[in-house]
Amino acid sequence: MTGLEDDLTAAVEAPDSADGAAGLRRARAWLTRAAEPGSVELWRFVADAGPAAAVLALRSGTAPEAVRALVGARAGEDTSLDDLRRAERCGARLVVPEDDEWPALALHPLTVAAHAGGDGGTQSDRTTALVPPVALWVRGDACLDAAVDRSVAVVGSRASTAYGEHVAAELGAQLGERGWTVVSGGAYGIDVAAHRGALAAGAPTVAVLACGVDRAYPAAHSAVFARIIDAGGLLVSEWPPGAAPHRHRFLVRNRIIAGLTRGTVVVEAAARSGAQATARRARGLGKEVLVVPGPVTSAMSVGCHELLREPEFGARLVSDAAQVIEAVGSLGSDLADPPRRPASPRDGLSDLACRVLDACPVRVGVGAERLAAVAGCEPLEAMRVLPSLEVSGLVQWTGTGWRLAPPPRREARRR
Amino acid sequence: MTGLEDDLTAAVEAPDSADGAAGLRRARAWLTRAAEPGSVELWRFVADAGPAAAVLALRSGTAPEAVRALVGARAGEDTSLDDLRRAERCGARLVVPEDDEWPALALHPLTVAAHAGGDGGTQSDRTTALVPPVALWVRGDACLDAAVDRSVAVVGSRASTAYGEHVAAELGAQLGERGWTVVSGGAYGIDVAAHRGALAAGAPTVAVLACGVDRAYPAAHSAVFARIIDAGGLLVSEWPPGAAPHRHRFLVRNRIIAGLTRGTVVVEAAARSGAQATARRARGLGKEVLVVPGPVTSAMSVGCHELLREPEFGARLVSDAAQVIEAVGSLGSDLADPPRRPASPRDGLSDLACRVLDACPVRVGVGAERLAAVAGCEPLEAMRVLPSLEVSGLVQWTGTGWRLAPPPRREARRR
Repeated sequence: MTGLEDDLTAAVEAPDSADGAAGLRRARAWLTRAAEPGSVELWRFVADAGPAAAVLALRSGTAPEAVRALVGARAGEDTSLDDLRRAERCGARLVVPEDDEWPALALHPLTVAAHAGGDGGTQSDRTTALVPPVALWVRGDACLDAAVDRSVAVVGSRASTAYGEHVAAELGAQLGERGWTVVSGGAYGIDVAAHRGALAAGAPTVAVLACGVDRAYPAAHSAVFARIIDAGGLLVSEWPPGAAPHRHRFLVRNRIIAGLTRGTVVVEAAARSGAQATARRARGLGKEVLVVPGPVTSAMSVGCHELLREPEFGARLVSDAAQVIEAVGSLGSDLADPPRRPASPRDGLSDLACRVLDACPVRVGVGAERLAAVAGCEPLEAMRVLPSLEVSGLVQWTGTGWRLAPPPRREARRR
Repeated sequence: MTGLEDDLTAAVEAPDSADGAAGLRRARAWLTRAAEPGSVELWRFVADAGPAAAVLALRSGTAPEAVRALVGARAGEDTSLDDLRRAERCGARLVVPEDDEWPALALHPLTVAAHAGGDGGTQSDRTTALVPPVALWVRGDACLDAAVDRSVAVVGSRASTAYGEHVAAELGAQLGERGWTVVSGGAYGIDVAAHRGALAAGAPTVAVLACGVDRAYPAAHSAVFARIIDAGGLLVSEWPPGAAPHRHRFLVRNRIIAGLTRGTVVVEAAARSGAQATARRARGLGKEVLVVPGPVTSAMSVGCHELLREPEFGARLVSDAAQVIEAVGSLGSDLADPPRRPASPRDGLSDLACRVLDACPVRVGVGAERLAAVAGCEPLEAMRVLPSLEVSGLVQWTGTGWRLAPPPRREARRR
């Protein structure tokens, strides 16, 4: 408890001071150790109270019962300074939403989903809930936000076939050659084939792990993880250094892979597989789901074909990287050199407009009253800013309500 | 010219007499030799004038110039009796629209398309036009209409891979086991693999040829064609006995494969291939297009994946025969023994209602004025019969016009 309460109090009382910033980072580090990620209830409590006040409330037992239950006995423990030092020793750092490199826009649909989710008394299912991370442990030199700005998830079975591994490696190499970052897990099969393909093309990749970024799991991939770092890529995790790769953590982790990227490519997937689950979470976030078909005689393509056979699901069949980029990129942008980053359309927005924007759901439009309730303003105020958000291409009117405008908006984010 | 004009005159003057029926059959036999099939102009001329009067007009030079040009010097020739005798010698017959076994309902969308097609002065492209045959040469003992009532086209590349041939044979066997007839061409590759799969399961198939039904093309398949006949299947062709398999005839023939069946399964297809063309014609007729995916590394699956990537095209991915039957069959009907044939919903229709029904297009609805023009009646008369056609489930109102009701209607045709 090396002064944790003092640091937290400083963050609450003087958030803009150096001590306040350190306290805030320490609060989020503490949260990654104290609570398993993926809980909508915890994320909302932190978002509402602020991270330092949230941790103070959890440690003093004044937080709501539903949130305290998520932390349990860990409330009394504190290894936050040790975790931050341990990260530093392996070349890692904690990236928090208050940092410039936080991938706020990529994660925006997760934020919207976490705000929009049901307010019922029951706990959300952490393995399926759509909720942003409270912080990310990141190992590697690249800026996280820049690394994932033009990124595609390539996911698939661990028990992949030679065909699937060939396709994943080809996709990885071709995406890398065209300046797209491959994001995947670190598992056997499709994950590692995609990383290796990109690395062979000299391109950095991002591996999102279900354990600490200082651990190599599976151990056989420690050399690949080292090459990812050397190539300018990143290892990313919601769990603090030393955390073990528990089984359920992979499911919780999958939403980060879907959430950081423009779209998810499923290369091989068995029926009812984790790769399918990642694809469904990507779709739930309004992101593209792209599916590589395979022989109908292969059990490892059954899950891919299931996704393509669902008429309402909206997955697209892709055969190569060009078709992937066509789906996730914007017209013409991949023919030219990457343009410099233009001003963000959010730059000039008032605080009120930002809040209303953040309150807009991804898919089903909602009325101004609902937006106002989420944004914490009067319906009339929301109705005053919505037209300008629409003109800026940030939101759209569906005929029955307001929602976020779909991806073309991202064009402005290219750099 | 063994009394051709006499027979034709008998058909015109006493169409219901035995001589009249023979003359009418001879007229259609003559047409299959004199004019290459696939011409909308010729088909309409025959439909309007009646086959016997149409042949008389062609032979006497009084037919319209556009139609005479399709026959040219062949107008003066007549081998119709020889062709009918030659067919008889090889166990074949000419099936004409006036016969009970004519597959009128299966071919209905082609009839509608031929009526609805443009009336411009330019000749239709015979390789893409949607138009019924004027008659079909059929070899084998089965009733043509019964054989194709529950049928699926299985088409694909001649230069197929072992994977494609395996899938085609499996599909053929499983469709055959479930009482569905495989319809295909007689070519190397996917065609013959599908036939062989069905034959191995003891099921009859239908081979639609681009040459006379007395010819084995390719010669290597003469044993397969003999087995099709022995198994109770059929060889079918628009061309008379002895006709050679000219290259363009395969394209013209493809519409018959699409037209006779409930849906078309594409197993392997190269980019811009004949199998794709057949699929497009099936879609143009409002029939199901089902596509088997394959490895994205295989050139023989590129055409399949192209079809599946066209968002507006509406092809469905299928992995096995059960998925094919689910798509072309009707709910529950394939769990029970095939029910006996119920009364046709067309049974009680007046002549006027039949004409209005035949005038309804397959896809885009049109107004009563347009229907009346095609049906040859007053708009008010058409409007009087349309409600009862709708109640019978034969037509539907799209919100902007009338069109044929989609396939569920076919349920009533099962036997």
